[in-house]
Amino acid sequence: MDYIKSPMGIEKRSFEIIGEEMGECNFPERELSIVKRVIHTTGDFQYKDILYIREGAVDSALELLKKGVTIYTDTNMAAAGINKKALAKLNCKVECFVSRSEIADIAKEKEITRSMAAVEKAVEEGVEFFVFGNAPTALYKLKELTLAGKAKPKFIVGAPVGFVGAADSKEEIEKLDVPMITIRGRKGGSNIAAAIVNALMYMITR
Amino acid sequence: MDYIKSPMGIEKRSFEIIGEEMGECNFPERELSIVKRVIHTTGDFQYKDILYIREGAVDSALELLKKGVTIYTDTNMAAAGINKKALAKLNCKVECFVSRSEIADIAKEKEITRSMAAVEKAVEEGVEFFVFGNAPTALYKLKELTLAGKAKPKFIVGAPVGFVGAADSKEEIEKLDVPMITIRGRKGGSNIAAAIVNALMYMITR
Repeated sequence: MDYIKSPMGIEKRSFEIIGEEMGECNFPERELSIVKRVIHTTGDFQYKDILYIREGAVDSALELLKKGVTIYTDTNMAAAGINKKALAKLNCKVECFVSRSEIADIAKEKEITRSMAAVEKAVEEGVEFFVFGNAPTALYKLKELTLAGKAKPKFIVGAPVGFVGAADSKEEIEKLDVPMITIRGRKGGSNIAAAIVNALMYMITR
Repeated sequence: MDYIKSPMGIEKRSFEIIGEEMGECNFPERELSIVKRVIHTTGDFQYKDILYIREGAVDSALELLKKGVTIYTDTNMAAAGINKKALAKLNCKVECFVSRSEIADIAKEKEITRSMAAVEKAVEEGVEFFVFGNAPTALYKLKELTLAGKAKPKFIVGAPVGFVGAADSKEEIEKLDVPMITIRGRKGGSNIAAAIVNALMYMITR
């Protein structure tokens, strides 16, 4: 059977096809590489219209990545999708706080979701780089803590997917004056959140 | 701030909204629950038109799940997205073979992709339940081994996403006379592959 076996060859050709088919697009070069990677991850060209990349967000993200940070994710899937070789090169690490054993107990005690408890814990530990692919309540919690002066996020990926609360949670987080990349509306997901982080890391590592 | 904090409450309402908005749909009840879960995972209604569920595939999958099998996945993301509580209830486990340390060496020695080497290893170990969310080459390899009488897959989720090889790989795997669920065309992904497996498990565990 005759098929391309080189992953990098497949990726290069994929990005060419995406470029050819995506039509008019006003993103600058680095932002465009994020948009293309999200389309590459989903096969869905609509992302070029619903990806919101705040001015200066790419610079802020790269600055954090270059200093070697802990990246918070709200799901194991997002954590699994973030490229481990690129993370290692950058001396960064990723952690899905909600998976920590103590989080379930804290959530029960405080009568909040585990996602919310996970954000509180990350904030306590000084995390600045937040990636959300699933949990609207986590975004609300981060907004709340930021407005209260308790959290100081320096970069946010806001990509919860869904039909209840997801779109609203992204609208709400956008009200913060923080560098961020979001997916507007219902679409999003852990795979997309991971793709955005990978696109950012590859700007430095490749 | 006022927002729904119960994950199950959010999911229930989400499925209601999906049902209301998805329009005419001829899937039987169990198949419909798979379609809805994929839409829930992506926010993308197009999946109702590109999800292919072969007749008898649900029964075959449930039979395997009930006997407690190892589920092969081609990515850590798909493995991460498969519900661990449901897996445990069913006495099933999930393994991303490509992450095993020996696979890179085997791939190098045989000059094949790691994805292909991972399929070979899974087949050697008698895996019957295959889940693909990313690697077209892995699907080709499984087809090859099946036609050669070496592999005996009893259920396949074929959901690679992408612009080079993905759609073809799914067309090719459909030529096998094996119970399967695929996503036709370019769309798909590890999140979708995991959602399909979760929908199947929930038919038994919930």
